Amino acid sequence: MRKIFAFGVLTSALFFTGPAFAAVSEETTYILNTFSFLVNGVLVMFMAAGFAMLESGLVRAKNTAAICLKNIALYSVAGLAYYVVGYNLMYVDVGNIMGKFALFYNPSGAELALINAEEATDGLVSAVVDSGYSTMSDWFFQMVFVATAASIVSGTLAERIKVWPFIIFVTVLSAVIYPIQASWVWGGGWLDAAGFSDFAGSTLVHSVGGWAALTGALILGARRGKYGSGGSIHPMPGANLPLATLGTFILWFGWFGFNGGSQLALGSALDASAMALVFVNTNLAAAAGVVTAMALTQAIYGKMDLSMCLNGALAGLVSITAGPDLQNPLLSIIVGGVGATLAVLVVPLLDKVKIDDVVGAIPVHLVAGIWGTLAVGIFGSGSFTTQLMGIVAVGVFVSVVSSVVWLALKYTIGIRVSEEEEEMGLDTFELGLEAYPEFGRAM
Amino acid sequence: MRKIFAFGVLTSALFFTGPAFAAVSEETTYILNTFSFLVNGVLVMFMAAGFAMLESGLVRAKNTAAICLKNIALYSVAGLAYYVVGYNLMYVDVGNIMGKFALFYNPSGAELALINAEEATDGLVSAVVDSGYSTMSDWFFQMVFVATAASIVSGTLAERIKVWPFIIFVTVLSAVIYPIQASWVWGGGWLDAAGFSDFAGSTLVHSVGGWAALTGALILGARRGKYGSGGSIHPMPGANLPLATLGTFILWFGWFGFNGGSQLALGSALDASAMALVFVNTNLAAAAGVVTAMALTQAIYGKMDLSMCLNGALAGLVSITAGPDLQNPLLSIIVGGVGATLAVLVVPLLDKVKIDDVVGAIPVHLVAGIWGTLAVGIFGSGSFTTQLMGIVAVGVFVSVVSSVVWLALKYTIGIRVSEEEEEMGLDTFELGLEAYPEFGRAM
Amino acid sequence: MRKIFAFGVLTSALFFTGPAFAAVSEETTYILNTFSFLVNGVLVMFMAAGFAMLESGLVRAKNTAAICLKNIALYSVAGLAYYVVGYNLMYVDVGNIMGKFALFYNPSGAELALINAEEATDGLVSAVVDSGYSTMSDWFFQMVFVATAASIVSGTLAERIKVWPFIIFVTVLSAVIYPIQASWVWGGGWLDAAGFSDFAGSTLVHSVGGWAALTGALILGARRGKYGSGGSIHPMPGANLPLATLGTFILWFGWFGFNGGSQLALGSALDASAMALVFVNTNLAAAAGVVTAMALTQAIYGKMDLSMCLNGALAGLVSITAGPDLQNPLLSIIVGGVGATLAVLVVPLLDKVKIDDVVGAIPVHLVAGIWGTLAVGIFGSGSFTTQLMGIVAVGVFVSVVSSVVWLALKYTIGIRVSEEEEEMGLDTFELGLEAYPEFGRAM
Repeated sequence: MRKIFAFGVLTSALFFTGPAFAAVSEETTYILNTFSFLVNGVLVMFMAAGFAMLESGLVRAKNTAAICLKNIALYSVAGLAYYVVGYNLMYVDVGNIMGKFALFYNPSGAELALINAEEATDGLVSAVVDSGYSTMSDWFFQMVFVATAASIVSGTLAERIKVWPFIIFVTVLSAVIYPIQASWVWGGGWLDAAGFSDFAGSTLVHSVGGWAALTGALILGARRGKYGSGGSIHPMPGANLPLATLGTFILWFGWFGFNGGSQLALGSALDASAMALVFVNTNLAAAAGVVTAMALTQAIYGKMDLSMCLNGALAGLVSITAGPDLQNPLLSIIVGGVGATLAVLVVPLLDKVKIDDVVGAIPVHLVAGIWGTLAVGIFGSGSFTTQLMGIVAVGVFVSVVSSVVWLALKYTIGIRVSEEEEEMGLDTFELGLEAYPEFGRAM
Repeated sequence: MRKIFAFGVLTSALFFTGPAFAAVSEETTYILNTFSFLVNGVLVMFMAAGFAMLESGLVRAKNTAAICLKNIALYSVAGLAYYVVGYNLMYVDVGNIMGKFALFYNPSGAELALINAEEATDGLVSAVVDSGYSTMSDWFFQMVFVATAASIVSGTLAERIKVWPFIIFVTVLSAVIYPIQASWVWGGGWLDAAGFSDFAGSTLVHSVGGWAALTGALILGARRGKYGSGGSIHPMPGANLPLATLGTFILWFGWFGFNGGSQLALGSALDASAMALVFVNTNLAAAAGVVTAMALTQAIYGKMDLSMCLNGALAGLVSITAGPDLQNPLLSIIVGGVGATLAVLVVPLLDKVKIDDVVGAIPVHLVAGIWGTLAVGIFGSGSFTTQLMGIVAVGVFVSVVSSVVWLALKYTIGIRVSEEEEEMGLDTFELGLEAYPEFGRAM
Repeated sequence: MRKIFAFGVLTSALFFTGPAFAAVSEETTYILNTFSFLVNGVLVMFMAAGFAMLESGLVRAKNTAAICLKNIALYSVAGLAYYVVGYNLMYVDVGNIMGKFALFYNPSGAELALINAEEATDGLVSAVVDSGYSTMSDWFFQMVFVATAASIVSGTLAERIKVWPFIIFVTVLSAVIYPIQASWVWGGGWLDAAGFSDFAGSTLVHSVGGWAALTGALILGARRGKYGSGGSIHPMPGANLPLATLGTFILWFGWFGFNGGSQLALGSALDASAMALVFVNTNLAAAAGVVTAMALTQAIYGKMDLSMCLNGALAGLVSITAGPDLQNPLLSIIVGGVGATLAVLVVPLLDKVKIDDVVGAIPVHLVAGIWGTLAVGIFGSGSFTTQLMGIVAVGVFVSVVSSVVWLALKYTIGIRVSEEEEEMGLDTFELGLEAYPEFGRAM
């Protein structure tokens, strides 16, 4: 469970007087746990840049500035919504929503008292250290996870969704949808009690973004001209593949914080070792995803598709996110490779059913997220049935609520730009500028 | 004060034998403080890449390679100048400038003695640990701050300033101008004694870069054709907005090191909590800046301007930099939102008085820097009058000395490229290459 | 030696009961050492993105997607090969290759036992803590070094090598070539015993990549049209210089992890101070490289060449990598400046002998790598003769084995794309897409 420490942390402190070695002091444990949240959290924060570059690279030039704006806006709005509502809903008031629910996250009084004190007395420090980590560092770490879920949505719906309705959806997602389902597991709710296991969020983060994207794509419809008569598919290649590559590398880089930081502690030898194991598995799963996608696209299409290989890395990462604590790294390679295989195979299937996912976020985050969660029931410590139950519960909840929000937006302020705007590009109409005003190609 | 530890660090070590919890050992405190400088410092270092990308994205294609060169050159020169002169001037010899002033920063003898020793004796370790942190890690952390101040200047003056005079200015700024005013506060000088408070440098770093940029812009003049007759303004849009977006995300990422590392310690529960608080406030202020800029540009111009929204994030970050230790995060949202409002409103005012600031560094770093410093007097622990006094003192000093340097350069080697060079672009003339030799648009 | 701790770590723990200060506990040392590997390692991992951007910026548009694919593929394959063969070969079975050699890296049993235990007993923790750091964190840190060596090769051979043969070469390099020579020093082999000193790998990483690139370039041949009759050289400028600049900044950022993490420990005041010293020297050497390259290209060519200045930074970084623990930072400036001078001077020499190095990796990684290794014999603690011996031994070994592999590939599956493919660009033929489908220039 995400908010409770492994017992190792506390237990090891008891051995302070043990004969064989000198253990970590409680205050040191507090500092290390806190610093882990901050350092790993800042890596996760940078994933917002990764999504922005991935999506900037995979949309057409005329919609690039709009996708940049959506990405920095969604990261901002997600943090604000999580501050005003989400965090309290997820941790403080879950199960008590009808009781006294407080808006606005409040930093821990004990920590502020220590910071404000003239003197750091024993009692003040002790009151803080007892919590194991700074609650403010936890807020920061949890906040960047919400933002990740929100980031997933923008790519799928790019090139045709209006900015403001999208921002409103992200607000609801971050304030309400994400926190409620996350509380079921990481807030110590019923799914956690049932034994559902999701280390860093294949289901709770990635599939949530995936379901929200999928319902959005269905309600919003495909880009004009994407699907022709007779099942023809019109390719709309991304304008800047090095940026998409950069985005993937940034996401990979940040994922070490995403999975590694989800150990939630660093203040004992156990936690440090466990975090190292997570780093190893995370890297191998992603690497296996790339190689699998290269081999598969070569075999199927006769050419290696760069954007598929980038998505292979991401599918590998999403797949290992539910269980990056596997003790045999070879299993991580299998988990990542299978995840990338699924992503590569699902991309054409989505096109067949005319679900227009501009960057491939549904295969990568939803499909590989489901696979990774099930893999915990196959290779890890979880039960397959419980894992499946969790996937379905989260899927139903997020899909239903997201659909309601998308439909409400559609039939009020509208969610789709006009045909003319879509033709000319969102940048000109919604932002009044161009992303690359000097570049172009004589047609 | 920037060089002195919070008493919490030292005090907490005294409780090592206290009953309620085991505190941090002194050597552990030393290591954690040092590692905080290194990790946070390397985040700040990366802000140099952020400025480079922001400015690359906001200039026109023909001046892109030149701005890239200026950015990597200024980061390099700032570090070298700070090594040769700046650091010693800022910390070692302040107030004793007429006495024995030493060139070249020297690593601590006690630390080198420990590193060189055959055996790490008690005495050697003790001599090092007593200083609280590695002085070399402090040098690194302070150095990246100088580089940040220097980075601010290049964007304003882009597209028309020659490379070498710009480099000379940066050398003087880093060796002399920045260290002298920073010593007034962070070196324990008269402004610190007066109670002036600037946690991470809204005034000491950002407004310094802003004043240097403003005086430079006035003395250098606007780009040719920017301001037409009758008050007309000719827009010169940036060539690559996804790079500008990336630059903003990198700056945001690095800012956690900038503000968080300015706690200057990590070796106690107090410091870890305080750093976490800084992370929370920093993120909320930036997020508020983005949302404010979106709403304002939508309201004023009817469209959301991406570059304004990016500058909104940066204005939020600059604003919170003087006081990211606010204890109610809601205040950070206000501080960041007001900072972004000021930035959005000042951009057209600058154009009205024909001050040509290519990337908006003056609204973002100078105006929001002043606001953030005053906000400490309003919401934080500072006195409004003292804050104002510090802003004015730094402003007068930096403006006067910068003007002298700019004018000296103007009337000797010259600071502005020829009309032909400006027309053709700096890349061709000063660098002999193009940033994007294969991209272009049929005109 | 890379796998053995400085004695300071263990010694300092003995002073735990000393009178003057409280030392670090053994478990805390373990955590800090482990976290240093993870944090510094993730910075090194990000260097893969740096190489990808540097090379994307310096190739022509028609080969950009292919170089992106090669970069993400090589990082993936290097990690997998190091997992399956390389790490065990480098550390576990060196000198015993004819005996029982095990495929697949296995995480430490003691660490897994602790992670799996119901209770973190004294004995379990003690068994783990005794090793000084998590072996899994060490695997991660060593793995990103292999990937760096592999990254160097792709740039030199860009624009004409086929993807799959390149991937096969990287596999052999990572599984066999790199680990064998690295074991000579960092595995405690004969070169280490002889006193050869290479702190973070000017020879063991950078020259290895350089020799592999050089032999590849000789066997592969130059790009069509690069060298005309009568010694004429046809410039083929890179398509996107801001990306090359970004790549350089990312590499610089990651290099703090590369050199700093190579202290291999953080768990004592000695190690923290030594790491800080490495950060200072690393930055100054790179800065000196930039300024030297600016001055030299201005003096020689009358214009500052941006790509040369970027390579100047990298040459400074490579040069200081063998000995970033110099105790007078001024020497780092000299080491970096000389390295950049050599790089700037060697670039035209390579063209003269028609060795076509697309990004300048041979001057930067091989020439500056040799210089940096020799510099340890001049300014540092090493012997010049021993340093030379190590350089030659590694050079002969890597060149011979690489040549065998390149030739075997050449005469079996072939390593070079067809003339038509080279003319049209690798992106279209090997990947079936374009990196910038909407950008172009009316010719």
